[in-house]
Amino acid sequence: MSTTDKELRVGMVGYAFMGAAHSQAWRTVNRVYDLPARARMALICGRDTGKVADAADRLGWDAYTTDWRDLISRDDIDVVDVCTPGDSHAEIALAALAAGKHVLCEKPLANTVAEARAMTAAADTARAAGVRSMCGFNYRRVPAVTMMRQLVADGRLGVIRHVRATYLQDWIVDPQFPLVWRLQKDRAGSGALGDIGAHIIDLTQFVTGQRITGVSAVTETFVKERPLPAGSSGLAASVDGSGSADGNAAVTGPVTVDDAAVFVARLDGGALATYEASRFATGRKNALRVEINGSLGSVVFDLERLNELEFYDATRPSVEQGFSRILVTEGEHPYMSAWWPPGHIIGYEHSFTHQMRDFIEAVATGVDPAPSFADALQVQLVLDAVTRSAEIGSSWTEVQPALAAVAV
Amino acid sequence: MSTTDKELRVGMVGYAFMGAAHSQAWRTVNRVYDLPARARMALICGRDTGKVADAADRLGWDAYTTDWRDLISRDDIDVVDVCTPGDSHAEIALAALAAGKHVLCEKPLANTVAEARAMTAAADTARAAGVRSMCGFNYRRVPAVTMMRQLVADGRLGVIRHVRATYLQDWIVDPQFPLVWRLQKDRAGSGALGDIGAHIIDLTQFVTGQRITGVSAVTETFVKERPLPAGSSGLAASVDGSGSADGNAAVTGPVTVDDAAVFVARLDGGALATYEASRFATGRKNALRVEINGSLGSVVFDLERLNELEFYDATRPSVEQGFSRILVTEGEHPYMSAWWPPGHIIGYEHSFTHQMRDFIEAVATGVDPAPSFADALQVQLVLDAVTRSAEIGSSWTEVQPALAAVAV
Amino acid sequence: MSTTDKELRVGMVGYAFMGAAHSQAWRTVNRVYDLPARARMALICGRDTGKVADAADRLGWDAYTTDWRDLISRDDIDVVDVCTPGDSHAEIALAALAAGKHVLCEKPLANTVAEARAMTAAADTARAAGVRSMCGFNYRRVPAVTMMRQLVADGRLGVIRHVRATYLQDWIVDPQFPLVWRLQKDRAGSGALGDIGAHIIDLTQFVTGQRITGVSAVTETFVKERPLPAGSSGLAASVDGSGSADGNAAVTGPVTVDDAAVFVARLDGGALATYEASRFATGRKNALRVEINGSLGSVVFDLERLNELEFYDATRPSVEQGFSRILVTEGEHPYMSAWWPPGHIIGYEHSFTHQMRDFIEAVATGVDPAPSFADALQVQLVLDAVTRSAEIGSSWTEVQPALAAVAV
Amino acid sequence: MSTTDKELRVGMVGYAFMGAAHSQAWRTVNRVYDLPARARMALICGRDTGKVADAADRLGWDAYTTDWRDLISRDDIDVVDVCTPGDSHAEIALAALAAGKHVLCEKPLANTVAEARAMTAAADTARAAGVRSMCGFNYRRVPAVTMMRQLVADGRLGVIRHVRATYLQDWIVDPQFPLVWRLQKDRAGSGALGDIGAHIIDLTQFVTGQRITGVSAVTETFVKERPLPAGSSGLAASVDGSGSADGNAAVTGPVTVDDAAVFVARLDGGALATYEASRFATGRKNALRVEINGSLGSVVFDLERLNELEFYDATRPSVEQGFSRILVTEGEHPYMSAWWPPGHIIGYEHSFTHQMRDFIEAVATGVDPAPSFADALQVQLVLDAVTRSAEIGSSWTEVQPALAAVAV
Repeated sequence: MSTTDKELRVGMVGYAFMGAAHSQAWRTVNRVYDLPARARMALICGRDTGKVADAADRLGWDAYTTDWRDLISRDDIDVVDVCTPGDSHAEIALAALAAGKHVLCEKPLANTVAEARAMTAAADTARAAGVRSMCGFNYRRVPAVTMMRQLVADGRLGVIRHVRATYLQDWIVDPQFPLVWRLQKDRAGSGALGDIGAHIIDLTQFVTGQRITGVSAVTETFVKERPLPAGSSGLAASVDGSGSADGNAAVTGPVTVDDAAVFVARLDGGALATYEASRFATGRKNALRVEINGSLGSVVFDLERLNELEFYDATRPSVEQGFSRILVTEGEHPYMSAWWPPGHIIGYEHSFTHQMRDFIEAVATGVDPAPSFADALQVQLVLDAVTRSAEIGSSWTEVQPALAAVAV
Repeated sequence: MSTTDKELRVGMVGYAFMGAAHSQAWRTVNRVYDLPARARMALICGRDTGKVADAADRLGWDAYTTDWRDLISRDDIDVVDVCTPGDSHAEIALAALAAGKHVLCEKPLANTVAEARAMTAAADTARAAGVRSMCGFNYRRVPAVTMMRQLVADGRLGVIRHVRATYLQDWIVDPQFPLVWRLQKDRAGSGALGDIGAHIIDLTQFVTGQRITGVSAVTETFVKERPLPAGSSGLAASVDGSGSADGNAAVTGPVTVDDAAVFVARLDGGALATYEASRFATGRKNALRVEINGSLGSVVFDLERLNELEFYDATRPSVEQGFSRILVTEGEHPYMSAWWPPGHIIGYEHSFTHQMRDFIEAVATGVDPAPSFADALQVQLVLDAVTRSAEIGSSWTEVQPALAAVAV
Repeated sequence: MSTTDKELRVGMVGYAFMGAAHSQAWRTVNRVYDLPARARMALICGRDTGKVADAADRLGWDAYTTDWRDLISRDDIDVVDVCTPGDSHAEIALAALAAGKHVLCEKPLANTVAEARAMTAAADTARAAGVRSMCGFNYRRVPAVTMMRQLVADGRLGVIRHVRATYLQDWIVDPQFPLVWRLQKDRAGSGALGDIGAHIIDLTQFVTGQRITGVSAVTETFVKERPLPAGSSGLAASVDGSGSADGNAAVTGPVTVDDAAVFVARLDGGALATYEASRFATGRKNALRVEINGSLGSVVFDLERLNELEFYDATRPSVEQGFSRILVTEGEHPYMSAWWPPGHIIGYEHSFTHQMRDFIEAVATGVDPAPSFADALQVQLVLDAVTRSAEIGSSWTEVQPALAAVAV
Repeated sequence: MSTTDKELRVGMVGYAFMGAAHSQAWRTVNRVYDLPARARMALICGRDTGKVADAADRLGWDAYTTDWRDLISRDDIDVVDVCTPGDSHAEIALAALAAGKHVLCEKPLANTVAEARAMTAAADTARAAGVRSMCGFNYRRVPAVTMMRQLVADGRLGVIRHVRATYLQDWIVDPQFPLVWRLQKDRAGSGALGDIGAHIIDLTQFVTGQRITGVSAVTETFVKERPLPAGSSGLAASVDGSGSADGNAAVTGPVTVDDAAVFVARLDGGALATYEASRFATGRKNALRVEINGSLGSVVFDLERLNELEFYDATRPSVEQGFSRILVTEGEHPYMSAWWPPGHIIGYEHSFTHQMRDFIEAVATGVDPAPSFADALQVQLVLDAVTRSAEIGSSWTEVQPALAAVAV
């Protein structure tokens, strides 16, 4: 741990899947990295007193509250970490920024472009006062992903021709899987598209350094009606994020989000791209896979084998060309000097530790972390273009400019 | 070899890549399979006397001719095997059918829907007279592909939700690669789309037993001008299929076909599909890859590892579920009883031997082989829909019905 | 975290690689598992005051000491965690057991069979007084490894015929890599054999439930002289475990341990086995790979892809048999319910968290954890047989019985 | 086909598995390679008139005979291709060489060292008269294997430290599999050891350019009694090579060969090696796998994916080091210019075509082909050392010198 006495007091809103992942990262980050400030797990917030008290104890937070406005109003909180479903991101983040708190907000930034625009504007205003904000696209900090970006930035791939990105899961293939909040548009904004599609949009734009300019899309809801979660008396009831709950088969409700979204896209550097996000890809558990082909080389990444990067270097002698499986566990690889010897792999949660590392460093040294809210707005604009294209028979749909005075 | 004395005398038109592959198959098929007729490599046809004479000697044909009309008019030819570029398929095949010859025609069936319709009509007419016709989508006869179809047909995948198909190559990434005939629309019809995209269209329709009903597509020509092939004085000159010829940098011509084509599609059974064909995927040599996800299971195939099939059976105990790498080399696997012991792999050319096996058997026993010209027309209609969608801003484009009285 | 108030106060000796890994596990274990006691990171011990103070701060221990005897004598320590090089294991563990402390001792248990016997005897004596002991073969707790054992125990592999185990690294291929303590027999006991060979001996005995009965071995030291570590004035100086230190080329010393050890073995259930441990396998970073073939099936494990298990079930229909790549990340898989959703992988360090989980549970509920010191002694006896066989021209060498009245 | 009129008239003895593979190669070789002579499939020999007549017809040989002495005595035969079980290799090959025929003899060269020595001596004598001989270790001609040898020869691996070779099959795991000739010592010489172990001994010596100097070995026969093949009235009866025949459970006989053989070895260049050959590795069909680690790099080969070679180049920048999966299908790769475009894979049988190519070229141009009988004798001497070591409790056993005046 650093010798600094500087402390960043974190207040986290939400304690489900993302809350647990963030807690593990806040707890670990100063134990492995030498940073200019120490994170203090000061306060956790959730609506249910019993559950949040239990979460505070289990996850190791100093205190808890059931009112996020209380969390934001306290003087002894420096950072607000927003881990709630997307429908409350905007309200909480706007309030936090207004209160001068640094904000780390989970992805997708918001459920609508309008909210994302407002949040980006607020972040810009707050920046002038030294307040930092960041959106939690944690996969940017998987070492192999960071390395991909470096290879592209160093020109090792040449002119990028193709991007091929899928994020495939299969947790709702069973039609009896219940209607959890992630399947409700008013809570989640969209389905596979915003939940996992957002990751591959951000990741590919990050790695290539290019923006998606237009899309042609198709979305689908394969199972249109599902049982309400057990214990739920209706859609108004609280629907938790648990995937294991058995449905209440007697009462069903409509699925209001996409099960899958596929689209072709063009990037502003000339590349052609395909994207697919689905929760119906049987056998694929967390299959975020990206391949990028350039005039001088290619890279392939698979989140289920996140310690590996395949790199094809077309400038090598032709008889020796091949995809090299690089084990991204050397001390020289991004973020890895703090961890274990080569070949001792890291896991999913480490991407959050790396994210907290960069966030703490940025806040403590007074620079802006990335991805900014503006970067996340760009992702939101792509999601919006996908949705609109799907609504108009897949017609080519331009991604709206982030800064233009467009009514949304 | 079978004890039969029945002989099928084959006349083959063309002697380049496909001609060599077909020759290897005709030479081998009766040596490994016990069939009701023996193929005789009777006559080979090419325009250049010296080259075709050499090909006849090298590839083992009894005789040669430089005039395909001569080949068709001969009484001692039973089968016409069309291995020319797509622009001559229709003319040759129509003449052969009219002359009562059984026809095996390379894919894509034709360069236009109109030609393919005419060929299909002619095949239907000829069928009444006992004349057989088949289109050479050889990958259907890769044992792992045949096995995929059987798994789907047996209901092992349940309801199919996703089809994900790519056919990626990289042989023209270098902008100095010359303007060979495959890059000229008047000869090849289209570029990656018709050459390799046609394969994945046929293969996925074959495996799923479903038809593509509509598409939204984007195509691209990354390198728009290329040097003419060495020795060529212009586009009128003969441009052979060799990929190794150095271009004549001093004189260039326009590339008139697509370098890459990507599209999303819907199948008539409800599946969502993505397709990508490219000759610019650096590092991918012959990467025909197909993944199909159903409600009960998934399959994955990769032509570069064509002896393997990955099968995910979601009906197994959940803790044991995983993609099984099946080595499709057992005697019980399709076509494999004739070859080597388990684990002794076969290669690309064997798909042609299997194709000839089924063709000979069908002709000798008086049944229709598959894929028929009608099946190939369906592929042509999809190619046509892709082209049209790309021309109108990727808008959703229905695949025309094969049998309707539509003006084309 | 559990609702228990029971606390286990841990004192850890050592703070290098293993100390860091153990700290991460002690810090995390009660955050993810609900256990009957909470671990308290009470005291850390190291010889250098400045370094141990820094380690205490960085790794999050309440206090530090430079005298391990002090650590053992304190009343407020319940558990002694031994993370030092092997030459001090026996002395520390014996003292700790004598003082009534529960002991977790890193592997290999000791540098000699005599020490391991003494430790095992002491552990047996202490057990009668309710004192628990365990050896840190952490890889037993990789979920895929635990699952392998369950498959074998459930009879899914039938009669085991073959064990094939390698543990390959490459960190000393460079002859200029310095003479760190792991390359000195008096500190490390042996080289690749005891350091990583011990892991595959334990792991395969654990998974198969069988013991190695005899071996025929060859060992080799490829680079016999190496530069002393920088800052070292001789072998008497402290040689830390860092692999990155540049050697002091001007002064060299003899490598007194094996660089690689290979041996064939027989297991008491009739299986034939091969083992290989090497630090000279260029390109292999942490390649612990085990394959087990039985009459009904096979399993394959690779530590560099530790979230995966390949399982071949020979009782399935023959055309569908294949190695299934099981992603061992389902909630039903061993240890995994506490972590992330399926497909969100874990890393190397999690094996330690799982180890601490089982150790805490065993101590808190008064049962003996495994592997016991007796289990670790069995590994030591195999290491001893390997060493002896290598010394007598690879002649077949029986593994000594653990319990016999043999003079050692 | 070449323009040459020179013809090599081949007489082949045997028509089972190897006979079929050789026939396919003789039939193909001049169709794809331009060579200084043409092979003519002149005469095939087998003991059973009906079966050999059928084989001649099916495999495409001009004529047949039931007496190998007749085959050898004929003036119109230039080459004798010996594809019989090992117990008749010596007699046939010696007679053929004495008659001035060029000889291609399947591996292993013989069933005993004495026979192999006699054959080597005869080959040396015949060489003086311009008669060529070669042993059929066909895997040397898998392009990826040839490439491995080139990489080693070019110094790309540096000093070789480790060789790790396995050849695993599973076709006799079922104890009801019958007692075919390959399981009888008097016919086959040995079991897995000579049949498939011989391949990895030859292949690794070929690739490394080093010889095995000594071994320590264990062999095992897991199933000691098996049913006689159906239709067999006793061991004296003809036991064919078919693996699919059901046994005659009522009558059993003893298995007189090894089911598995494992050994450690040293090579004369200083490398440590492990070898394993087994027919009891459930799930492994034809798993010849070789890994070689050198001071500068490593290579990995797997016969079930014979078109691929993994190459690790430790001289590359450390962050980019990784095993490159090279698709050995480029025109510049060994033997591949004659086949298909990149990525269009070849199969098992092609190794024989490449072997015939080099054999024809050597014979036609008057040079000695490799591997010579002397090379094959060296393999036999290793097999012999393995057998002897296994008989004397795995004690280290030197491989006898090939040329010494040792009584055997």
